Order: sequence, then C-alpha cells, then structure tokens
Amino acid sequence: MKGADMAKIYLGIDLGGTEVKLAVVDAYGNILEHASFQNSFNSVPEEVVAEIVRFSRNMKHFSEVSATGVGVAGDIDQQKGVVRFSPNLPRWKNTPLKKLLERELPGIISIDNDANAAAWGAYWLDAKGKVRNLICVTLGTGVGGGIICDGKLYRGATGTAGEIGHIPLNPDGPRCNCGSFGCIERYVGAAHLSSQAKELLKTRKHSKILTLSGGDPDAITPYILARAAESNDTIAINIWKTAGRQLGIVFAGIINFFNPEMIVLAGGVSKAGKLILDPIKETVRERAFEKPASICKIVISKYTQKLGVVGAAFLSR
Amino acid sequence: MKGADMAKIYLGIDLGGTEVKLAVVDAYGNILEHASFQNSFNSVPEEVVAEIVRFSRNMKHFSEVSATGVGVAGDIDQQKGVVRFSPNLPRWKNTPLKKLLERELPGIISIDNDANAAAWGAYWLDAKGKVRNLICVTLGTGVGGGIICDGKLYRGATGTAGEIGHIPLNPDGPRCNCGSFGCIERYVGAAHLSSQAKELLKTRKHSKILTLSGGDPDAITPYILARAAESNDTIAINIWKTAGRQLGIVFAGIINFFNPEMIVLAGGVSKAGKLILDPIKETVRERAFEKPASICKIVISKYTQKLGVVGAAFLSR
Repeated sequence: MKGADMAKIYLGIDLGGTEVKLAVVDAYGNILEHASFQNSFNSVPEEVVAEIVRFSRNMKHFSEVSATGVGVAGDIDQQKGVVRFSPNLPRWKNTPLKKLLERELPGIISIDNDANAAAWGAYWLDAKGKVRNLICVTLGTGVGGGIICDGKLYRGATGTAGEIGHIPLNPDGPRCNCGSFGCIERYVGAAHLSSQAKELLKTRKHSKILTLSGGDPDAITPYILARAAESNDTIAINIWKTAGRQLGIVFAGIINFFNPEMIVLAGGVSKAGKLILDPIKETVRERAFEKPASICKIVISKYTQKLGVVGAAFLSR
Repeated sequence: MKGADMAKIYLGIDLGGTEVKLAVVDAYGNILEHASFQNSFNSVPEEVVAEIVRFSRNMKHFSEVSATGVGVAGDIDQQKGVVRFSPNLPRWKNTPLKKLLERELPGIISIDNDANAAAWGAYWLDAKGKVRNLICVTLGTGVGGGIICDGKLYRGATGTAGEIGHIPLNPDGPRCNCGSFGCIERYVGAAHLSSQAKELLKTRKHSKILTLSGGDPDAITPYILARAAESNDTIAINIWKTAGRQLGIVFAGIINFFNPEMIVLAGGVSKAGKLILDPIKETVRERAFEKPASICKIVISKYTQKLGVVGAAFLSR
C-alpha cells in the first residue's frame, strides 16, 4: 500500500448468530476502538442494521472511517452484498445488507462470508500480507475456511470456496450435517470432539476430563479436553492426537492440490495449541509431497479474536 | 485478446518420457502443423534439445512463431525455466531448458509442467477461455492435474499445485508411490484399474475382458475394460462404476473447497466416457454442496490429444 493509504481508517463488523462485533481498525490492523451487542436466532435484519448503525455512529473515530466491511455467518452474494441465507439467522433471507447499510454508513460497503473475512484477517495479521497463497481454517462448532490465492481473497464460482470442513476424511464414515459422509468436520468439530470423549469415558470412570467437567459428561468442551491433556490425561491426549492426525491427512491433500505457503488455524478449538498442531505437522510430513510440505508453514493464529473484525474491515482495502 | 494478437502463431512442445510432440498453433488453438519424435528413459537433455530445434526449424511456419512453450513431465521451476527433475527422464536434473532453447528458438520461451500445460489447453479449448476457475484432471498411468484460478494458470508456492492424484480417498488405504496411503491415484490410475480386473477375474473365468485381452490377464488395459463394459461385462461395468464413484468423492471435496465452474477430464482413461463420467456426476450430486455442485460442469475433454501441445503453445500468451 502507498503511504497515504496507511493513514486510512476502516470499520469492521463481524455479524454472527449470537453476537455482533464492531471495530474501528487502522491500516496496520490495530483496533482503535470496539463494541459488541447480542444477536439472536430470530433477529430481524432491519433491527440489527439499526443497532449496527447506532453503535457505529457512537464510535469516536466514526467520521474518519473510509470504508466498511461486514463478515456474516452465512451464504453471501459478495457482488450484490446480499445475505442469501444464514443457518443460524433464519429471518435473514436474501437480505440486501449492503443496500441497507449504504444509506446509513459512509464509504464503500463490502459484505462477505465470516470465514472469508477471517481468512483475509489472517492474511494481513498472521502472514503480514507477505505470502501469495494461504488457507485459513476455522476450528469451532463447524470447520470453516477461506482461501487467499495470489494475494487476493478467492471466492470461487458461487462464493462457496473454502469449505474445508466438507472435504471427506473417510467417505464411508458417519453422515455429516451437510448430507455427505465422513467430512472432516464430522470428526474434529467441537461437538464431535466432546462426544468422542463422552464415548471413551463410558469404559473408564476416572479421568481428569470428568473432574474438570464437574462429573457431567455433557459438560465436556474442547477447552476442558485441552486442560485435561495438559494434565496428562491419556484419553484427552489421544483425542487431540487423533484430531491432529485427521486434520493432517486432509491438509496433506490440500498441500498437494493447492501448494500454499501457509495454513493458519483459528477458532476456539485451535486454542488447544501444540496438542493439535504437533500431530498435524507430523502427519503432513509423513503424507504430503516433500517440497510443498517443507515450505508450507502451519501455524495457530495469534489473533483469533481479531481476525473476523479486522478481516471484515480490510475487505474494502 | 486484441485483434492483432489473434494473428499470432505459437510453437508448443509436449516433452514426455516416451515421446516429444511439437505443434505450430494459431491463436484459436488450431494446429497448423505438427511433428513428433521418440524420447527414451536415458535421453540426454542436450540431444533432445538438438532434436527439438531441428524439428522446429523444419516447420513451414517456423519463421512466423512469436513464442514457444514447453510442457515437461516433471518438477519444473517455471520462473527460471529449469527442469528440476523428471521421474521418467533421470538424466534431466536441474536442466536449464529455457536457456538451452533460448539460444536456438525465437521469442519468449515458457517452460511448465505437462499437467499444467494440459490444464491451460483445456481452459482455452474445452472452456474457450470463458470460465474463471477450472480444474483439469489427467487420468492415465498416474492421475495428474492443473488449476486455472481467476483465468490464470495457478502454480502454487513451489509449482506443485494441482497434484489431484495425491488427495487421499482412504487414509488407511494401500501405500501409494508417493509414500502416502490411499491416494486417489492408487485406485483409479490405469495400472490399478487393470489389476482390479485381474483380481476379480480370479474367481470368474468367463468374461469379455479375457476374450479382449487374448486370455492374458496381464494384457488388460483400461481400453479393454471400456470395450468390455460396452459389451455389458459385469466386472468391467463395476470397475468403471467404482472408479467413477471414487473420483466423484474426491471431486465433491474439491468442489466444496475450490468451487470451480468446470472440471475437465483428460488422458487415456477418460476415454471410457460415460462409463466413468456418469458415476462421477451422480456421486458429486450426492456429496457436494448443492449450489457449487449445480454450477460445476464436469466434462470429458474433446481435445485430449491436443491439450498438451496447444496448452504449451499458449503458455506465453
């Protein structure tokens, strides 16, 4: 970017099913100020837009904002700025979000899928914009992703590109929410990690996992599994090893196919850190072509909390 | 392209392990003249280059050629125009092919991997340059591929991108030549199709496959398997169904991840036509996300024989 552009200020909005986060971001990705409000399953677009506008206008730097970007959890028509649908916001259906915001907020408004926005954030924050090709994988309830190709956000033919969670790990595996079978999300999504633990604990009653979950197998979370593994709990350690190996198998295929310089892991489950990263790297070394594997950095984002808003803010850059 | 460019003429060279093909190609992809000579496992780069130069100079249109492209079966440094290595041409090691040719041939010389050249050919011939994102899959002894991203040949960080054959189908499957396990190539590569037939014929002695192979199970080829299936041989039909289903599973993952407008199948095995195409399409419909699957055309190249030379010729376009 040119010197003058580095003085610009952007507004980024991460519009999720349970929360809407807003941040004013400088051109270096620093958050100058931020705010958030609750969203709910039955929220009405017009009301959420009104809240976004109110919160934005209350920002100290509002008058300096040169462009606004919104990452939405859903299927987005980026060109038209329309939310086609959002599984967790059923009343958002063909919502012309860009038009609704254009009346109220200054500058160019860009709308994209939240996983794409996060990938764009990872590109600027974790990779400092210094690689050409990057994959960002969001590990949470679902497994999402975004692709940076030749320094640009790649959306594919219908804006769906990056659905890494729905690459098959085992085509004869269990049915996935998407209708297919054995997708990687079906193995390493947060709920599936927890239910694996629950299953394994049926035959072993003493585990740090149960202590941490207050004895309630339904209260097990990836966070608890990470803490238990750090206390050397065998079941928890094995769950992370297996999850890392499974992701590593899929990543080996992605590396052979897409040959990226970097894979960035983000999202709640990625907080397991080395527990999941080490087996991923080991499996990639064992399975991917040597050269592309050797240059592909696999890292956990240092900016998980910021990726969504900063990436959204930078959509118009 | 501009009008003036449409009058340009290109030289394309497909440098394979057993044969070198040359063609003079116009800007519409028509082959104006062509030639070929044998190559061998132990060929010496300087001698092959001398032959390429001799054959090129003998071309009637040689003086009109504005640029030359070479697709080489091997690992290529496209920027430097160096053949790093070629599994089927062991004496080609860090061969500065571009430099060697620059002394002898006019215009810009571009060197790339043969699967990339074929993908570029498929982009211009099968897709007429009218899509943005395309995958070309070469089905032969191995399973190769190339990626067109945003209308450009995508090579990835180290020029390895497009190794579709080494996406895992079954991570616990048999060992692949690449060192990994259960890669799709290990299931649908020509030799593996033939050996599946051989295996299945152990328990059934009467089959059109054996008639066509002169009773010799070692003489079974994908060509024979296609002819046998067309004569309603159950074993052959099932082999194609299974291969199509296996490719469809991998393609579903590619469609979810990369969201291309088109997947073009090329290479000898693709001549099985509908036998393999129908189960691919059916499996993709069952397994990929609906929207990206519905817009992704999956076709068999109408130009398999030409893709390599025309794609190479167009590398410098």
